[in-house]
Amino acid sequence: MDESNLFLRVLAAYSDAVRVKDVDAFTALYDQDIHVFDMWGTWSLRGLAAWRDMAAGWFSSLGDECVVVTSDDESSAVAGALAIGHAVLTYTEIAPDGTKLRSLSNRVTMALRKTGGSWKIIHEHTSAPIDHQSQQAILHRSDD
Amino acid sequence: MDESNLFLRVLAAYSDAVRVKDVDAFTALYDQDIHVFDMWGTWSLRGLAAWRDMAAGWFSSLGDECVVVTSDDESSAVAGALAIGHAVLTYTEIAPDGTKLRSLSNRVTMALRKTGGSWKIIHEHTSAPIDHQSQQAILHRSDD
Repeated sequence: MDESNLFLRVLAAYSDAVRVKDVDAFTALYDQDIHVFDMWGTWSLRGLAAWRDMAAGWFSSLGDECVVVTSDDESSAVAGALAIGHAVLTYTEIAPDGTKLRSLSNRVTMALRKTGGSWKIIHEHTSAPIDHQSQQAILHRSDD
Repeated sequence: MDESNLFLRVLAAYSDAVRVKDVDAFTALYDQDIHVFDMWGTWSLRGLAAWRDMAAGWFSSLGDECVVVTSDDESSAVAGALAIGHAVLTYTEIAPDGTKLRSLSNRVTMALRKTGGSWKIIHEHTSAPIDHQSQQAILHRSDD
């Protein structure tokens, strides 16, 4: 893998795995000891088995729909066997007839480590900002 | 700086700067081109001037109170001139008489780069998870 665009390639592989709802391909992007700060519901999640369960549940919940993930504002750095990247991801649900249904965005930060010749995500942090007054998540990007 | 505990030292310096509300000491932890995904209000924030303004506004809003920041579950990795760390931070407001007022927690991920012999934070991502039903932020850690 060309390390100059490592992060973009990982985002593309992530997007491919989500679009075709391939739990194995999704799981293969992550390290056994993945530590996730996920946007939804739980403070932290550790280990590939738990993360695989999340993906399996997410993909099966989609029914006939699929999700297209696109990215903006990608930035990354690599040194030796460690890489860090961040971006804004937009998830758009697509109906079986191709109609775009709802979409939402989040911020993502990923840390990757190269082990045995392959890069794996060791840490992922996704979130949306929170409105100070209402304490509600701001799920659509509008301020930058 | 001993790189084996680089991240813990950065968290300690962050906590010290916040406790004494020292905008200069706070700002000195960050790179000129800092890119922040902050928990509150905005999707992203870039550049040290904007981040300094945030700190100045935060510290001056505290009046006679101060904020003590503690960390849990710290994890980090260093390779060459790049480091990544993540943790859970708890911010506790303390009244002038020492009484603990409200506290809240968030998840933090930091990326650091060594430039000219000193480590600076180049990316910071803070967040709380969001409840799927209500879309409200979960501001107190209880599930792990």
